[in-house]
Parts: sequence; C-alpha cells; structure tokens
Amino acid sequence: MSPKITTELLKQLRQVMKNPKYVQEPVQAYIVPSGDAHQSEYIAPCDCRRAFISGFDGSAGTAIVTEQHAAMWTDGRYFLQAAHQMDSNWTLMKMGLKDTPTQEDWLVSVLPEGSKVGVDPFIIPADQWKRMSKALRSAGHDLVPVKENLIDTIWTDCPQRPCKPLITLDLSYTGVSWRDKIVALRSKMAERKVMWFVVTALDEVAWLFNLRGFDVEYNPVFFAYAVIGMNTIRLFIDGDRMMDPAVREHLQLDSTLEPEFKIQVMPYGSILSELQAVGAGLSPKEKVWLSDKASYALTEAIPKAYRYLTPYTPICIAKAVKNTAETEGMRRAHIKDAVALCELFNWLEKEVPKGTVTEILAADKAEEFRSQQKDFVELSFATISSTGPNGAIIHYKPVPETNRTLSVNEIYLLDSGAQYKDGTTDVTRTMHFGTPSAYEKECFTYVLKGHIAVSAAIFPNGTKGHLLDSFARSALWDCGLDYLHGTGHGVGSFLNVHEGPCGISYKTFADEPLEAGMIVSDEPGYYEDGSFGIRIENVVLVIPAETKYNFKNRGSLTFEPLTLVPIQTKMIDVNLLTEKECTWVNEYHQRCREVVGAELERQGRHEALRWLLRETEPLARAQ
Amino acid sequence: MSPKITTELLKQLRQVMKNPKYVQEPVQAYIVPSGDAHQSEYIAPCDCRRAFISGFDGSAGTAIVTEQHAAMWTDGRYFLQAAHQMDSNWTLMKMGLKDTPTQEDWLVSVLPEGSKVGVDPFIIPADQWKRMSKALRSAGHDLVPVKENLIDTIWTDCPQRPCKPLITLDLSYTGVSWRDKIVALRSKMAERKVMWFVVTALDEVAWLFNLRGFDVEYNPVFFAYAVIGMNTIRLFIDGDRMMDPAVREHLQLDSTLEPEFKIQVMPYGSILSELQAVGAGLSPKEKVWLSDKASYALTEAIPKAYRYLTPYTPICIAKAVKNTAETEGMRRAHIKDAVALCELFNWLEKEVPKGTVTEILAADKAEEFRSQQKDFVELSFATISSTGPNGAIIHYKPVPETNRTLSVNEIYLLDSGAQYKDGTTDVTRTMHFGTPSAYEKECFTYVLKGHIAVSAAIFPNGTKGHLLDSFARSALWDCGLDYLHGTGHGVGSFLNVHEGPCGISYKTFADEPLEAGMIVSDEPGYYEDGSFGIRIENVVLVIPAETKYNFKNRGSLTFEPLTLVPIQTKMIDVNLLTEKECTWVNEYHQRCREVVGAELERQGRHEALRWLLRETEPLARAQ
Repeated sequence: MSPKITTELLKQLRQVMKNPKYVQEPVQAYIVPSGDAHQSEYIAPCDCRRAFISGFDGSAGTAIVTEQHAAMWTDGRYFLQAAHQMDSNWTLMKMGLKDTPTQEDWLVSVLPEGSKVGVDPFIIPADQWKRMSKALRSAGHDLVPVKENLIDTIWTDCPQRPCKPLITLDLSYTGVSWRDKIVALRSKMAERKVMWFVVTALDEVAWLFNLRGFDVEYNPVFFAYAVIGMNTIRLFIDGDRMMDPAVREHLQLDSTLEPEFKIQVMPYGSILSELQAVGAGLSPKEKVWLSDKASYALTEAIPKAYRYLTPYTPICIAKAVKNTAETEGMRRAHIKDAVALCELFNWLEKEVPKGTVTEILAADKAEEFRSQQKDFVELSFATISSTGPNGAIIHYKPVPETNRTLSVNEIYLLDSGAQYKDGTTDVTRTMHFGTPSAYEKECFTYVLKGHIAVSAAIFPNGTKGHLLDSFARSALWDCGLDYLHGTGHGVGSFLNVHEGPCGISYKTFADEPLEAGMIVSDEPGYYEDGSFGIRIENVVLVIPAETKYNFKNRGSLTFEPLTLVPIQTKMIDVNLLTEKECTWVNEYHQRCREVVGAELERQGRHEALRWLLRETEPLARAQ
Repeated sequence: MSPKITTELLKQLRQVMKNPKYVQEPVQAYIVPSGDAHQSEYIAPCDCRRAFISGFDGSAGTAIVTEQHAAMWTDGRYFLQAAHQMDSNWTLMKMGLKDTPTQEDWLVSVLPEGSKVGVDPFIIPADQWKRMSKALRSAGHDLVPVKENLIDTIWTDCPQRPCKPLITLDLSYTGVSWRDKIVALRSKMAERKVMWFVVTALDEVAWLFNLRGFDVEYNPVFFAYAVIGMNTIRLFIDGDRMMDPAVREHLQLDSTLEPEFKIQVMPYGSILSELQAVGAGLSPKEKVWLSDKASYALTEAIPKAYRYLTPYTPICIAKAVKNTAETEGMRRAHIKDAVALCELFNWLEKEVPKGTVTEILAADKAEEFRSQQKDFVELSFATISSTGPNGAIIHYKPVPETNRTLSVNEIYLLDSGAQYKDGTTDVTRTMHFGTPSAYEKECFTYVLKGHIAVSAAIFPNGTKGHLLDSFARSALWDCGLDYLHGTGHGVGSFLNVHEGPCGISYKTFADEPLEAGMIVSDEPGYYEDGSFGIRIENVVLVIPAETKYNFKNRGSLTFEPLTLVPIQTKMIDVNLLTEKECTWVNEYHQRCREVVGAELERQGRHEALRWLLRETEPLARAQ
C-alpha cells in the first residue's frame, strides 16, 4: 500500500474553506466525519469523503483540516492501516492512547482566536454536534454548519449516489403489511403524544415499507427518508424507482386509499425543506419524534421545544422482534447457509492439504456455494477468511498483500454470512485441517464452553442482553484468558447484519431488554497475537423457556440456535466439558444432521452430506 | 402506627413560604428532600425534616408542599409505611407505578403560571437541581434557592446538630497518615490540573484525616467539610472537638509544620462564604474539583467555567482500596464478629424451641454478644432480624407491631453487622431451627450456588463488579427464580457499611473497576412473599488470583471471604451442588473452624466452639 498523495487536494479544500461561494464566512477548520446522512455503519462510495480526502479507508475515522494542519482520529484497529494509507500531510491521532488529544482539545490548541469550525450538518449526528459545539464555544470558537459539503465541491470524479431498483417483499416474507406497520407506529406515537415521526435510518425505512434495495453494499437498503404523520405518509426517495409497476402496486400508489394511507412520494433532497415546513406549522404540544442520532440538520429543522428524541425509535424496537414469517424465513436462510458451508468445509478438507487454497480463494468459494442457494441476494458483510496469525486480527479481511495460504498446520477462522430474500446469516467456524495442538484445543474448548453458556442460558423476561456477557467469558476467565470484543449483536431479517437495540456486550448498558422473537449473535472468541484466532458464532433466536417456577409468571427466556453448522469436534478437548455441555454439543449436532442433512439430501449433495454425518458424530466423554 | 397530624404544621409552612423574612419572593411550592447537606445515606435527627413535616420516616422520600397540596414521593418499599404514617393532608405518590407523575410533571400540573418553587440549596445535589430546574423553566416556572431552610423555621423542638467528640485512628489502623493521604490527593489533583478539591461527603472527610465521630447513627462520621488546596488545608468543623488534646496532637495543630500541611480549622457554617472567596479569587485555568453529587449551594459557589465535576472523587476511589493495615483490621473485626454470631446461633438453637425468642430479642442478643468483643463501637446498620413471612420484606426491621416469635417451623434470616475500631462487618445467615422443607432447601441451595459463583469467580484485573452480578443469579434463573436487589456493595473500613465506587449489581454501569484491596459484599437471596426470605451474605476482599495464563500479564483477581460464619448445612440439598461447590463449602467451613475456632478457644467460649465444630462438619455428597 502506498499512501495517497493529498497535497493538491488539501490545497483545494483550504481554498473552498475561504470561498464565499460555499461558506458564509471563511472557516478555519473543516471536519470530515466517517458517516453518511443516515448514520449508517456501511456507506456508499459517494459517501466515502474521509477516504477521498485522506486516503485512509478504514471503517472508522474523523478527519479535520485546518489552514496549517490535517489530522486523522482513528482507533487501535486502524493505526497501522491509516499510517500506511496517508501521506506526510497528515498527523495520525491514535484514539485510546493517553497522550492523544480529543478533536475538541486539538482544535482549541491549534486554532487562532475566534475561529469558525465547519461541518456538513447532514453528516454529523445531533448529539455529537452538541458536544463539539459546547466545547468549542467555551474556548471562544464557533461550530458552524456548512450547507454544501466542501469535499463534494473538490471531488470531481465523485461517484453518483446509487439509485438502484427496489425489490418488494410480500407478506410471506414480512408477516406484516406496511399499512399495519404504519398503524402500529401511529399507536406508539399516540401513546407518547407525538404527531410526527421522522424515519432517518435506512434500515428503518426499508423495514417500514417492506422494501429492499442495493444502494449500499452488504446492507439491502436504499437512500430514502420518511416522515409519518398521524394522517400523512411522506416518502423521500429519488430516481425512477417509483415508476416500477411492482413498487407502485406494493405501495398502492395508484389505488384509491383512505387519505391516511396515501403515500406522498417526494424527492430525497427535499427532506430538509419539508421538515422545516412541518416544524414551522406545529401547534403548541405537537411533538416530533426523532432518533437522538439523527443528523444535526434534520434535528434543527424542528424547534427545540417540539422535539421528542429517544435513543431507540419505535421502529428500531418493533423491527428487532421478529414475527413468525420472519423467524421461519430466518430458519430457512440458515439451513441453506449451512448447506453452503458443509460444501465449503468438505471442499476445504480435500483442497487445503494441496497447499493451493488462499484466504481469498476460500472466501470466494464460500460465496460461490452460497450463491447456489435459492433466494441468495448478496453477502451480508465482507468475509473474514483468516488463517494462522491473521486469525488474531479481529476485523481482518484478506487482501492480496496479506493473503495467506491455508495449511494443515494452522487454524482457519471463517466469519461470513449472506443476505437471502428470506433472511440474513452470520456464522463463524474455526477449523483445523491437520492436528491441532493441545493448547489450541484447550482455548477452543473454553470458547465453546462460553458459547454454550450463553446459548443455553435461562433468564427472566425483561433481562437485558449485557447481563449475559460474562457467561460467555467465565470459562476463559478461570484460566486467565479473555477476548476484547462484545459477545453478540442484533441481526436483521433480510436487513442489516448489525442492528439495535439489543445485543450481548459488556460495553453497553442502554440496550433494550431481550424478548421472545429477538435475534442476536452468540460469538465469544480467543485471540493469540501472532499465532491464531478462535471464534464460534451462531445466530440465536430468543424463545420462551420452560422453567420449574417461571419467575412468578414473569416468564422465562432462552435461545434457540438458528445457525446449524457443525462445530469441529477435532478441536474439542472433551475432558474439559461438563456432562451438560457434552449433551448440548451432541444435541446440537443431532439437529444439524436432521435438518441440514435432509436439505443436503434433497439438493443431492451427497459428498457434503457424508462430511456432515462424519462431523456430527456424538462426542464420547472419557469416564 | 397512627398518622402524624400535620394540619397545623402545613399551615405554618405555607405562611413562611410567603414570609419576606425568609424568602425574597413568595414561593408557591417548597421541596423537602430526604438528604442532608452531605448527601448521606444515614442522616442525623436534626436532618429528618421530611419526616418532621409529614410523619413518614422511611429512608427514601421527597415531600413537596404547595399552597393547596402536600405530596410525598416514595418507592415500593415504603408504600404501606408512608400510607400509615401520613394523615389525609398528604397525597402518596407511588414511584415506579405507571400512572404516578414525576415531581416535575406534578408541579407543572398544579402550579399557577409563573410560579416559584423553593428548595434548600444545601440539601439538593447539583445534578438534581439541574434536572428539576430545566423542567420547571421549560414550563414557565422557576426553581429558586431558599437560603434559610423553611422547615427549620417552624421546627421549634428541632434537635441540635450532633457535635460529639472525635476519635483519632493511629497508623496501626489506617496504614497511611493523613499527611500522606493529602500528598497523594494533591498528586491526583496535579494530574487533573485542578488547584482545589472540596470534600463534601462525611466519610471522605473522616477517611482523609484518620478521624471518626458519632454524629450519625451507624456511620462513624462527623459533620465537617474540607477544602484542600495545593498549599492549604481547611477543615470546617464545629464545637470544641478541636480542643481535645488527642485530636490536636493527631492533626499536629500546635506543631511547627510546613505551611502546606498546616490545617486551618474554620466553623462548619463558613464553608459557603469561604468557597465563594475561593471561587472569586481563581485565575483562568484554575479548576476546583467537586463531586457531581455535591450540593447545589457549594457547586454554585464556584463559577461554572472553573468547576471540575466527577461522579467519584479521588478520595472515594482511594478509600475503596484498602491497605494492609486496613485489611488486617477487617480480618480481625470479622473474626470477632464470627465469635459473637457463633455465640448467638448456639444460644438461639437452645432458646428458639422454648418459644420465647422474638425478632427484637434475637437482634438485641446479637448486639449484646458483639458488644463483648474488643474495640466494638456500635452496630453498622439497623439489624434485620426476621422470621417467616417477615423475611421476605427485604428492608425489614423488627418493631413491636411486627415483632414475630422465632419457631422451629419457620426460616430465620439475620442480616447484621457492627463497627469495630479495626473494621466494619455486614453478614447475613439464614437458619432453620427445626426441619426445613424440600422447597426451602432447594431455594437455599440455589442462593448458595450463586453466592459461591461470585465468591469463587476469577476475572481479569479492571473488571467492573456489575459484570459479575449474573453469576449470582444463574442457578436461580435456571429454575425460574430471581431476587430483586443487587448482589453486593462496597464496605468501608471502620466507616460506612455502604460505600462507593464499586459494587456488584445489575443496576449500575458506572461503577469503578474492581482492584485488589477493594472490599464488597456478596449477598444473593431469594424471597417468597408471605412465606420466607433467604439471603447468604459474606463480606469479601478482592485479591490477586493464580491463573494458568494470567490474562497476558493483565493480572487475575478473585475474592477471599472475610466473613467466617458457618453456612447452615441443614439447609443445603447436597445433591444440587457440583463437586467444586461442595469443596468450596467444605474448605470455607474448614477455615471457619481453624480461624474462628482458635479465637473461641482463646476467649474460653467452649460451648460456642462445640457449636461451630458441629456446624462445620464436611458435607458428604451422595454418589
């Protein structure tokens, strides 16, 4: 990787920072955050402005350019990559290190008195604006919104904002019509006495209207906003996508509908002016509901007294609880995904000893097998295909420079998943194609014990996921081992592979309580720097549990694994398992045999079926 | 309990709310919070203003009196008690119920436009002021500080503020001199670049100066503030306590000292004016460190730009980590406490069958045995002595109206502790003096499994206590049982039995990480409404653990029980224990035998020793 030469670009940016065509008054600093206008985790190429100006294209980072300096804040995952990708114009600010200044402190230290700091108000979330603005003001500076994005003014070959055709999902996939979702949303709005709800997150728009798109890689979403009133529905979306007869039919755009279900389609770019009009027309006590992570621009459109901000929107919460159609779809998707992985692992077992399989080839092969399955749409995230020391890099993605060949001497970790029209998958398996060492087996077995401890946990209705995080670590902790990531995240139903508001992590506290129908991942791991990485991940469904005393009718919950892919028994030190844990593994494998075996049979994949049967032989415990 | 008649008192209060002698402008509402000026958990009689005006004397509650209404907010523990103690002038606001308005909402609903709401700025913490003030302002009202406490103006027989003699603790108890504590504090201040630190919590003043007092029941503290500068020490304290030669000697008040260790003694009441003088004299960048729970009055004394507020003060954090002298003292205190409880349980075993022992008598007897031990000072909290259904009331304290007789048919729960000059104890044991039912044993055994899971837990250095909370619940959860309180709290060293900043609870997230030397309680329970209560509580010390891999040199921690009182084996269903749990119980009892047995022997308490030996026979597991 050679760094991007940014001297000329920075010169141009510094010119537009003073150009009255773009800024009311010159700005002495300009902030370029990572995100898009919807605070998405995955962003479209046209939104990769920070990567354009700096060369650094990791998933997290904020650039700030002043007249004299250019600095980049990123976290420990990206120190090396950022240092490689940026030229000497840039100073790397290593977040998390003691001596690294915050963006605010750094700005205060370098800016001349009474400076203006500019930022695109659509890209910065309102809560971040508030914090930054306060800090700057108390040092005599001003944070100012710059309407035109200054990077866009100098990005001559900026890709177009994607505007791909949509797909409609019928009731067999969604279980609930968009009309009924609007009705449910309005009843939540009535409960909180709000008159308007602004949908800003892309997956929330997609979920609400039972539509999917392809504007962003991995996430089946499309660029749009929606504003839902008690009697109106406005959808802000561009392109001729609304000309598609299937979409028109799905949204009943040409039908005679009660006015409160008539969708007004408006240009994507008109959201701000429309919202300002809503804001200007509010009567006292008419509140507008927004996520507290919505952009500063949209939040400001509503006068402060009329805003109703919450960390999780009612759509975010409703979307997390899957209905029967969705859980059945997720089950189907996971069976197909397991078929693809049985094929892959069977293939790897034969090919790896030849020394011809690289991490990239293995990832491609995984995609190939998945794409053979019905209703396959795309991958749900960039495949983590890593062997040996690469496995210890938690967010690794193989590129030609790092691409390692799989061998019978190293552990192989594959974290991958796909979008099927009926569901989203995300599964990690750790395999050895030769003979694992006693230490590797020991570590694997602790991770497995942690995985089982979460998966088999029973807990009262209303428990928050973060309370289960330590269960995943207990066996590792007993031996002085740990892993530095959370244990699980919410998973969408043919939607984003990472979604709120629930999860299993020591890092969050504000997660919403788990309830039956929610779907999360269970993925403890262990990483030995420079040697190997181990992770065992299933997607699991929250289901009611049977308990002796049922928490005085509060209700009991537990998890059901949706992922049905064998856990390599070769890696297990059976003597470290309790009888209960042994039984869990055997019952899990029995289920893989029955369910996935039947599908392999149906698809005539006999070799993969033989592999599955061999890999799911019951564990025998030493007495 | 008959309610307190408050008609006349409320009339008087409403008069002073309009009396220009006390208020600049009439206030239309007056808030009477629970606390004192130091945000203490336990308060002195002169600070029980809310109990005085309303009759309700539970530990938590806020009264608000307007021209027309008087309302009391309290939580579920106190609904019944508050309803009994208050007359019809009062409306009970049941916190936690869906339809109960917040104080702010209620005020907004009853106040005439543009009202003033008064409160004593010394009693309300700054963070609470901020919240309340904002809510009132947005509805067109004003929260105003009323300098003179209006309750005090009508409380004609208000008890004097206690001002009891102090005791000094020498190095053998504290391990560190007050001078060295000041040096350490100043180095923390230098790190954060603050010039002043204001000590507002009573236990922090006591700890800093190695002094103890008796101004508040159960907590060995005294009314005082301190302001520590980089070169000055100011102690605000009343009475002739500073005339005591032992205190003068201890604080070196009459010695020739370097000026930065010279303590300036000032009247307790002068804190505000002195702090205002400090605030007025600050140069730019000179910050003043305060707890964010300090009173609004003291916080306001420092101009906003100069405040440095943190949830935990450096003293709170330093105090939590006990040094060798303190842990050795805590060990001694717990051995003496165990001797007293062996005597008590031996006595109860003989007396209960006679039907003459009530809950109050048992509590008195426990105090009697404790008071026979060396360096006994007082109890560390009101003894919870409860049998049968009373045991299910988590914060029960026996009073004549509820006083139940212990019997061989009911479970008895005793949660009690004492202050010794060398340490603070807090222990709960649950006993049956007849034959427990299978269900009682089952529940007890789950609680015991939870207790052991926490006590034997191994975790990496830097883990926060709240991450261990679920370990205590796992066995109960498996059967659909739970308890609705946290699992543990920090314990002071001859100081408050409840202290921050660490603990083990699902309710907190902002606790400080556990480190070796911290002391917490481990007290899971189970409560069957109307039938019985079970709790098993030890005080445990955080110690380094030996692990195979030691978290890559991050270090491993675990707990050592300081409490050494037998856990009644009669209550244990051994078949529900794992082998490891059985071994834990047997090793714990072996340690009780050795350590407490030796002390019982030394004190010539042979009958209690025989009881101890019998109660600590090893468990035998059915094969």
